[in-house]
Amino acid sequence: MYLQDIPLHQAKDRFAEALKNAHLDGLLGAERIPLNEEAVGRILAESVVATHCSPHFNASAMDGFAVKAEDTIAAALNQPILLSLPRQANYVDTGDPLPEGANAVIPIENVESLQADQTICPADMVRKPAFIRIRSGVTPWSHVRPMGEDIIASQLILAAGQRLSPADLGAAAAGGVSTLIVAKKPVVGILPTGTELVKIGINPKCGELTEFNSVVLAAQVIDWGGEPKRYPITVDDYPAICEHLRTAASECDLVLINAGSSAGSEDFTSRAVEELGDLLVHGIAVRPGHPVILGMLPKLKKGEETSAWVPVIGVPGYPVSAALTGEIFVQSLLRQWLGLQEIIYETVEATLTRKVASPAGDDDYLRVVLGYVQNKLLAAPLSRGAGVTTSLSKADGVIIIPRMIQGLEAGEKVAVQLYKSAETLRHTILTIGSHDLTIDILAQFLSPSGKRLVSANAGSLGGLMALQRHEAHFAGSHLLDIDTGEYNLSYIRKYLKGIPVRLFGWVERIQGLVVPRGNPKHIKGIADLTREEIRFVNRQRGSGTRNLLDYWIKQLAILPDQIKGYDQEEYTHLGVSAAVASGRADCGLAIEASAQILDLDFIPLFEETYQLVIPESSIADPVMKPIFDLMNDERLRNAILALPGYKTNHLGETVAVLP
Amino acid sequence: MYLQDIPLHQAKDRFAEALKNAHLDGLLGAERIPLNEEAVGRILAESVVATHCSPHFNASAMDGFAVKAEDTIAAALNQPILLSLPRQANYVDTGDPLPEGANAVIPIENVESLQADQTICPADMVRKPAFIRIRSGVTPWSHVRPMGEDIIASQLILAAGQRLSPADLGAAAAGGVSTLIVAKKPVVGILPTGTELVKIGINPKCGELTEFNSVVLAAQVIDWGGEPKRYPITVDDYPAICEHLRTAASECDLVLINAGSSAGSEDFTSRAVEELGDLLVHGIAVRPGHPVILGMLPKLKKGEETSAWVPVIGVPGYPVSAALTGEIFVQSLLRQWLGLQEIIYETVEATLTRKVASPAGDDDYLRVVLGYVQNKLLAAPLSRGAGVTTSLSKADGVIIIPRMIQGLEAGEKVAVQLYKSAETLRHTILTIGSHDLTIDILAQFLSPSGKRLVSANAGSLGGLMALQRHEAHFAGSHLLDIDTGEYNLSYIRKYLKGIPVRLFGWVERIQGLVVPRGNPKHIKGIADLTREEIRFVNRQRGSGTRNLLDYWIKQLAILPDQIKGYDQEEYTHLGVSAAVASGRADCGLAIEASAQILDLDFIPLFEETYQLVIPESSIADPVMKPIFDLMNDERLRNAILALPGYKTNHLGETVAVLP
Repeated sequence: MYLQDIPLHQAKDRFAEALKNAHLDGLLGAERIPLNEEAVGRILAESVVATHCSPHFNASAMDGFAVKAEDTIAAALNQPILLSLPRQANYVDTGDPLPEGANAVIPIENVESLQADQTICPADMVRKPAFIRIRSGVTPWSHVRPMGEDIIASQLILAAGQRLSPADLGAAAAGGVSTLIVAKKPVVGILPTGTELVKIGINPKCGELTEFNSVVLAAQVIDWGGEPKRYPITVDDYPAICEHLRTAASECDLVLINAGSSAGSEDFTSRAVEELGDLLVHGIAVRPGHPVILGMLPKLKKGEETSAWVPVIGVPGYPVSAALTGEIFVQSLLRQWLGLQEIIYETVEATLTRKVASPAGDDDYLRVVLGYVQNKLLAAPLSRGAGVTTSLSKADGVIIIPRMIQGLEAGEKVAVQLYKSAETLRHTILTIGSHDLTIDILAQFLSPSGKRLVSANAGSLGGLMALQRHEAHFAGSHLLDIDTGEYNLSYIRKYLKGIPVRLFGWVERIQGLVVPRGNPKHIKGIADLTREEIRFVNRQRGSGTRNLLDYWIKQLAILPDQIKGYDQEEYTHLGVSAAVASGRADCGLAIEASAQILDLDFIPLFEETYQLVIPESSIADPVMKPIFDLMNDERLRNAILALPGYKTNHLGETVAVLP
Repeated sequence: MYLQDIPLHQAKDRFAEALKNAHLDGLLGAERIPLNEEAVGRILAESVVATHCSPHFNASAMDGFAVKAEDTIAAALNQPILLSLPRQANYVDTGDPLPEGANAVIPIENVESLQADQTICPADMVRKPAFIRIRSGVTPWSHVRPMGEDIIASQLILAAGQRLSPADLGAAAAGGVSTLIVAKKPVVGILPTGTELVKIGINPKCGELTEFNSVVLAAQVIDWGGEPKRYPITVDDYPAICEHLRTAASECDLVLINAGSSAGSEDFTSRAVEELGDLLVHGIAVRPGHPVILGMLPKLKKGEETSAWVPVIGVPGYPVSAALTGEIFVQSLLRQWLGLQEIIYETVEATLTRKVASPAGDDDYLRVVLGYVQNKLLAAPLSRGAGVTTSLSKADGVIIIPRMIQGLEAGEKVAVQLYKSAETLRHTILTIGSHDLTIDILAQFLSPSGKRLVSANAGSLGGLMALQRHEAHFAGSHLLDIDTGEYNLSYIRKYLKGIPVRLFGWVERIQGLVVPRGNPKHIKGIADLTREEIRFVNRQRGSGTRNLLDYWIKQLAILPDQIKGYDQEEYTHLGVSAAVASGRADCGLAIEASAQILDLDFIPLFEETYQLVIPESSIADPVMKPIFDLMNDERLRNAILALPGYKTNHLGETVAVLP
């Protein structure tokens, strides 16, 4: 069972104290490496000081003649003088050292040939002229790069603790340095455990899970300057876990043991850490991530304990928790060992697009996507599930909601720590509205333009509300007006009063009932939904598909409470199909493609119109340009037509200009 | 000789057209790689689409009992019900699949043991109880992670063209993907040429240069996603250059040939490109960088020409020009070949600290360091020499001064493209003023605090003027008042009127004459400077050392024009010593350490006081905190005392509070 969850700051303090006692709170070690391109990205453990000057002699800065400036004083435009070679002048290429006694260079273009009033070129030098003619003098040290112009011996070139850039390597080499002393790369052992885990590439059976946390952690370790060492999957077997922990502790500087999601494997980990070494923390009040384990293991050499210790971190099995544990504990420990400062995330202020609840006892890490709409930076929260890997991959930044704060309101100003550069946020197109597969296709086609489409599924009406609040660039909508039979127009008039928008044609598509392969319950249409043995799965209120259903059940005089599962809501077409595929429901209303994708049967019922609502302010926004370009792109049209049940008869047409 | 320099945009157009004609304007190629940590940083050539759902079954989200929600409805706090195992309830760990028929999970902490009113723990399960007791019901799908919660099969997970992050690898693996199709890494051949070049680690003789451009270019290529292939140094021999170019063109996707700084090697390059292939451009009106060569070479296979082409870029020999050529041409070509967008640099507006001249005909790239003083972002231009490698390494950003603009004024608002994150600029401490070696030492000691000290040498008076304009956090100053014999006070009163500052003690140091080893001209003191055969090197006007000299020659009734070289100005102590070491001067006034460093002799003359002038606004600025911490740090004090001729009797003391 868990020890009591403790607040994050206490866990950090305990870990820091244990590291300090084990003399593991500073640089882990240093090594001397040759100065070459492979040093790029390494962290300097010692400052680099120049061993010689650059240039290390007085060098000509031009192609020309090295002279004593004093010899040239008499020259004037209408009073040329001759200098004799090699006594008074010597040809030098750029970079050549000045001959003894010379203190200036006359650029070759200012020297006349003796044959005619022409300038000399380097090729003339093979004839070795006896004299050159000049019409103006030079001051001492003209066109000379004096010794030490760039670097003076003993000068500090690079300070310890900095990450080596390509240019840094050049500066060090210019200063005469040929080796560098850099921080040792910490070796981080990664031990995946869990009987339910299978390797990437093996098809998981029901109850099995693909093990990829070790890959994510290893890639993070590389990113953070360490060297990962991945161990094979260990099943939930206590002696095996102990043995692998002992092996990893003898081979690595830090051990990450990643529990599978089952409780058994976690228990084994804490027990093993307690038995083999010191269990410091088991359970931290941080969301997501609770079951983090922190401890210290004795370092083994040839199977014998030494006086040294190796920290061990028990990383939770849920991917989002695992990644957060990496960020909070692994990253900062590696930075400390490499001699780097705690990372400073760039922080921006943004407006939260929706209300978020947060448990009062936890430090809560909320991942968001960010984008500018009408110059206001918006933060749209991503799905909060600890198993939702896509939330990690999509996140632009994170909001940390401190303990004792119970949540945040929509429209609230929040501080967001950025994972990406602030500049990239300027290239985000935000769309909120009805989910359609063609929006995913649009996102793929947009990618070469450098723009990124971020979509939040809030249903058609949710999209219009977002436009009303200026929180999206455009919205996909398919709201059928029961009275007029028209799509969208009456809703736009009602909800976007005073906001000039254009309605663009996008696709026509078939809606129908998704049922399991073979349609075992013989469903034929909407009327079947009232049958006792049929469990339906619905779409959320405000979605066009929900509207469509409500329209048809009204026509058929069916009441919502006659339909089992009417209250069970999904937010996307694919969500509806997945519910049917998993057996959670017997049918749901969705588009054909979503059924095909999950290998389900489909009963086509209605053709409907899906359009894009784009405010004039977005039409004027340069970020949207590629969207309009793509409306005329045959490749996009063909990709859409390849989906089952789709037509593009009005794609890109302006259907209406409102108000 | 050069072809005519052409404007940058024309050069880019010509190169782009040639690449297009050779079908080299898109993705260079793609390859399939396994999904593991080594994929991090690669660029996706094809979008990643999920092959299965995640989770791929309905999974328990908690440790507990899987039940039919319908069976639990009757339970209430004072009306517990029993569920029989395994018919109505089955123990599940987090992540386990729900058994057939179950549709919800009761968390184990909500289940009572039958022995007493205690909750059950997983260990109790080994006894396999026949019943469990519950006091509240659950709704369907409570504590269940439904199939597809994270990812639905066929869903777009990652779009082509994105750089793979650790989290991306997790998302792809969760979607059932085990291999990725990424852009081929372009192989970039790097050919250094020049008879004067020697390898890193070999001590260069006079006239020789350490070859490090190839290392910087190779490191840049790695940074930009390519694979560098460095060839050995080729001497300036035309047939050898041709042969190596042919070899590189057969082995690489792009060839960079880096001329030494001598004109000969450059000519060979352009001739060779013209003879072997197509010379497109020789000379671009960009500063620094003029002698850039762009061309195309036929691709060889087994020594035979094919119909394919390999672009070749002749990179100038000067390091700053070489790096800029890399940024302008190599980086953008590699990004194109990798399927990435043109890089978007974050751009900030800053105030230029000094006037900068710029040739009207060139696109001029001016590197700057940046820092905030009193919330104003300042851009301080770095040394402009094409050979000044330190300007590359120090640069925070670059200002591009377009053709036809002749320069920029001090105080002008300029747009700066950032090389670093905007956040790091908040950690810069700017000091402008007198140069002292202890400022370098301070910079080294500051580095672990995460703050960075950027110093510009403008002399003591220049430092006070910078404080007056609020363009520095503090200034080092040693201005002797001839009348009072006091340091700095009268100057601060005069130049910093109305600006509250404190004067802090820093060091006492010995000033004297730097002379060559053995003092061949037998110089004993200031009086010797008037001797006919003595060439002096001076410090710039406004520097404390210049003040000191002027004070003493006045005492000795010497006039400036009695001193040869009085007008020859250096900006630092080390600059003065370097001038003596190189033979440009016979002596100069400087501190002892600067003589020792360059192995020169030193004639001690005066002890002087060097103090720090710190405005109250900087004292209140948190960025300065580590400076005050270091004033009390024995390690810093000891490092200073290790320098010859230094005392620290008043280090950190408040000498005066003004006004």
